[in-house]
Amino acid sequence: MTRTTAELIADRARLMGPNVATFYDDPIHFVKGSGVWLWDADGRKYLDCYNNVPHVGHCNPRVVDAICRQASTLNTHTRYLHDGILDYIDRLTTTMASSLDTAILTCTGSEANDIALRMAEAVTGKRGIIATDATYHGNTSLVSQLSKSNVPTVGFGLGQYFRFVDAPDSYRTPDLDGTIFAAKVSDQIAALEEDGTGFAALVVCPYFLNEGFPDNPDGWLKPVADVVRKAGGLLICDEVQSGFGRTGTHIWAHEKMGVVPDVVVLGKPMANGHPVGGVVAGRDIVTAFRSGYRYFNTFGGNPVSCAAAMAVLDEIEENDLVTNAKIVGDHANTRLKTLAQKYEVIGDVRGSGLIFGAELVLDRGSKAPATDFTNQIINAMRHKGIILSKLGRHKNALKIRPPMPFSIENANLLIDTLDEVLGQTSVPA
Amino acid sequence: MTRTTAELIADRARLMGPNVATFYDDPIHFVKGSGVWLWDADGRKYLDCYNNVPHVGHCNPRVVDAICRQASTLNTHTRYLHDGILDYIDRLTTTMASSLDTAILTCTGSEANDIALRMAEAVTGKRGIIATDATYHGNTSLVSQLSKSNVPTVGFGLGQYFRFVDAPDSYRTPDLDGTIFAAKVSDQIAALEEDGTGFAALVVCPYFLNEGFPDNPDGWLKPVADVVRKAGGLLICDEVQSGFGRTGTHIWAHEKMGVVPDVVVLGKPMANGHPVGGVVAGRDIVTAFRSGYRYFNTFGGNPVSCAAAMAVLDEIEENDLVTNAKIVGDHANTRLKTLAQKYEVIGDVRGSGLIFGAELVLDRGSKAPATDFTNQIINAMRHKGIILSKLGRHKNALKIRPPMPFSIENANLLIDTLDEVLGQTSVPA
Repeated sequence: MTRTTAELIADRARLMGPNVATFYDDPIHFVKGSGVWLWDADGRKYLDCYNNVPHVGHCNPRVVDAICRQASTLNTHTRYLHDGILDYIDRLTTTMASSLDTAILTCTGSEANDIALRMAEAVTGKRGIIATDATYHGNTSLVSQLSKSNVPTVGFGLGQYFRFVDAPDSYRTPDLDGTIFAAKVSDQIAALEEDGTGFAALVVCPYFLNEGFPDNPDGWLKPVADVVRKAGGLLICDEVQSGFGRTGTHIWAHEKMGVVPDVVVLGKPMANGHPVGGVVAGRDIVTAFRSGYRYFNTFGGNPVSCAAAMAVLDEIEENDLVTNAKIVGDHANTRLKTLAQKYEVIGDVRGSGLIFGAELVLDRGSKAPATDFTNQIINAMRHKGIILSKLGRHKNALKIRPPMPFSIENANLLIDTLDEVLGQTSVPA
Repeated sequence: MTRTTAELIADRARLMGPNVATFYDDPIHFVKGSGVWLWDADGRKYLDCYNNVPHVGHCNPRVVDAICRQASTLNTHTRYLHDGILDYIDRLTTTMASSLDTAILTCTGSEANDIALRMAEAVTGKRGIIATDATYHGNTSLVSQLSKSNVPTVGFGLGQYFRFVDAPDSYRTPDLDGTIFAAKVSDQIAALEEDGTGFAALVVCPYFLNEGFPDNPDGWLKPVADVVRKAGGLLICDEVQSGFGRTGTHIWAHEKMGVVPDVVVLGKPMANGHPVGGVVAGRDIVTAFRSGYRYFNTFGGNPVSCAAAMAVLDEIEENDLVTNAKIVGDHANTRLKTLAQKYEVIGDVRGSGLIFGAELVLDRGSKAPATDFTNQIINAMRHKGIILSKLGRHKNALKIRPPMPFSIENANLLIDTLDEVLGQTSVPA
């Protein structure tokens, strides 16, 4: 049926329960998507500067075609033989260091992280997991414990195994070479070893997207990787947001940050919205995990999912979307920096490729976060047909993370509109 | 690329790691599916008497069309408003008792069970979970602990919260009214309360499919439901295999077993192989779960998944597949019973609708399971173009669980071939 916005909101509460978040004060009812564009039920067009799941564009024809063709041919599971999953893993792993040669496919990034943490337990025999205090890695009982900002009250006591370190913040507390971060992780490792939990793994998004994509220079993760390896733990890089070329300089953000992880976790953009996730690791780690029991995921790695995921890699490669991310991201960053000369509220501009944004502050001296103001801007942009969001420890960073075919023209529309909105919105005293 | 069977097996080991199970001594390479039929790479046709994921038939045109249409129109997430998820939950919940009025959609049954167990923890404040000793409910760290037959060696110590009771076995240890099972659960509840863990939930497949679908009469779960409720715990019914009309008498097996669960878990057949799962529960239970934190599942309940799931409900209803399951299942059961008069090795014939099979024994007096022989039969059937499997505590029950459009003619081909294979295979002394 076709509901009005009010009816949609009422039925959500009735059928989905309470506390189901929507974006914006005035939630949007989208009915159509194509490339970097979305349309609402009233026929209004929006530029999508936020959604990374439709990595190669909303309703990408190649991905849709791959799904339709395979879904009408065969869709089974990995207990039968099929070329699709092997072709995909073969291609995927060739984009990574040679030590990352084996994969397990899942349906979500949550399932993938849930496996990654168990891999660390299997390899080290220990259970202590370290993450930053402003991250998110998924929703299973185990993995949801990684969200310190939103600590679940239920979760079978798993919180005991998790320790948090301050998220890197290049704007407020610079750590130019990553040694401060490494020292903090080292402290938590010592604490875990001392209290008997033992250290199993550090889990990080290598570009720290949820933390507000701090301006860490290339190679920044090297010191912490050394600390982790010296302590016998695993380095798990969650590339759910940062991977598949988003940063514009490398296919994987861990390459940019100068490390080869023990385990790479993949999700959201992997199949452009078709539910696919995965874990890539070295053979020994996969063996340690699988030796205990036969992990089987009914839908994981099915022929349709693999066809969709393969089409995403084809699109990235044939349209050189990594280079596009660099060119458009650089342009947008430059324009944002120009805007910062005009608006005092823009405290910091940063990002790489098609993950970029600006931190909004009440005062450049104190760097006090303009959190409410940021929320106002997001909502005003929405009413001007621009979809973006906010993130970071203070929820005051504009989060701009569009589909990868985002163009210079799209970036100009985004920045021009932001200029207009900033000019019309009064900054609190 | 197109690999030979030997190359597929070698590449699986290389790319997917060890211990990745395939069906059959001589694994099959399927390349095409349609309705109840599958084709291998050599063009050989197989009758699928096993796969329940393609519930309304392999490559069902209505489901494929729904996926293609929605995938080419819009695919986003539940942070925007959309009619699809609301239409689906509305329709799904009307097939259940009025107390089951709210739903959370996920991508897999594992994710759904992972939520269900946390709902029990949230509602009761306790963590003790009871299941049977021959079940399987999924693969997350938490949920994988429910598989006693395959206890994971890794899993963050979660095994401490799980207790097991003997799976019902109508053939060897009859329990006609379910009171013996209820008493066993009662004992485990007492043990959980005594050791301080406390009792949170009983999780069962209401038709006990993995346990070997014992011949429990309708209403059989009532006594155990009373025991669970009296102890303040939740009754979680995992309808991943038993639901969507499979038993031929009811849409949900819990109805057949005379109970209204607190939580219903859904998965595999829900969208005919598109990765969709879900949890249906009463509003208070969903609220208790969601009050702690905002559960969000990126792909869960997306427009494409909901369109696929809706098409499955349409197909079941418009083609009256529940009635078909009853008619064809009754016919197959009758023919299997006739076969049992010819072959001493068939110890028991049982099932309901399109989950049925026979338990194979070395001796009808001792009921000693003919486990190796069952394996031989399964593999011989495969070479005659019939796909089925085995299950149960002794892995000696033929597991026949075809797509729901399975016909009388299909059932006759299955039974005729089984007759032939049983006649050609010598039973061990």
